[in-house]
Amino acid sequence: MADYKIRQAVESDCEEILRLIQELADFEKMGDKVDMTVEMLRRDGFGEQKFFQCLVVEDTTAKGAEGTAVLWGYALYYYAYSTWSGRVMYLEDLYISPDKRGRGIGTKVFQQVAQIGIANDCTRMQWVALNWNKSAIDFYKARGAWDLTESEKWNVFRMDRPEMEQLAKSD
Amino acid sequence: MADYKIRQAVESDCEEILRLIQELADFEKMGDKVDMTVEMLRRDGFGEQKFFQCLVVEDTTAKGAEGTAVLWGYALYYYAYSTWSGRVMYLEDLYISPDKRGRGIGTKVFQQVAQIGIANDCTRMQWVALNWNKSAIDFYKARGAWDLTESEKWNVFRMDRPEMEQLAKSD
Repeated sequence: MADYKIRQAVESDCEEILRLIQELADFEKMGDKVDMTVEMLRRDGFGEQKFFQCLVVEDTTAKGAEGTAVLWGYALYYYAYSTWSGRVMYLEDLYISPDKRGRGIGTKVFQQVAQIGIANDCTRMQWVALNWNKSAIDFYKARGAWDLTESEKWNVFRMDRPEMEQLAKSD
Repeated sequence: MADYKIRQAVESDCEEILRLIQELADFEKMGDKVDMTVEMLRRDGFGEQKFFQCLVVEDTTAKGAEGTAVLWGYALYYYAYSTWSGRVMYLEDLYISPDKRGRGIGTKVFQQVAQIGIANDCTRMQWVALNWNKSAIDFYKARGAWDLTESEKWNVFRMDRPEMEQLAKSD
């Protein structure tokens, strides 16, 4: 019998999801940039308006301290929109803990995200990756993805809350 | 009296929005990549589940053939999600027709998007721009934005529907 299962996240998974978000950010060498909290995940993923959805990989052989699930990985996604092609399945994070890799679990999760996107009429799946993260990029390219920054020259731009507030009140 | 007003899009704006989407794509030298239709915009922006929202710049001195509004520009946006910071105001397109530029309309629209993001607890505003589109990049940088592909090395990756279907059915 399999020692794990892939399922939709429930609210009581938020602590474990946050632990994995931090693990991934640490690997990306930006661990200090995580301003997420369990409360934010609860509000935004399981509140009245859902800002994301999440698949989790649950260990079926163990339980956490309070009887909650122990997670090995997650894929957090939402619906983005392209004015050229319509609905886009946006994959914010796909992460499997290092000691659980090499068993094809990441591929299965990625595959389920694609299936959910297809079922919801998405014409594309999109995400960002650090351009030095060769193992991630190899994983994606082996499954038919391509680097849009390389091929079409799209760069990502951002402003944070202080710049938004400055802009919002300027004349 | 001002000869334009900025307001939320309504369903009868979809034909004009599509005309402007095409204008922007032509400018970006990818006019042949627009697979959008008026029906898709109607379904996804004004149907039961809303995949985007849109501000439009309406000409207050003229009407279209069927009494509909004539548009000078638009900003199409949706709520994205960052596992590091929470809700993100994602700006898919911001476009003002060339003959209406230089009057600060684009800045006003950009400003309203920031205001909507703030009102909805977004911690960031994010978008992509073609890295050769100097006038757009100068516009954004002058308002406090920065290039995340340059500074943090994030590249955009994508797969289209055929690759999604391949992935979805693979073992």
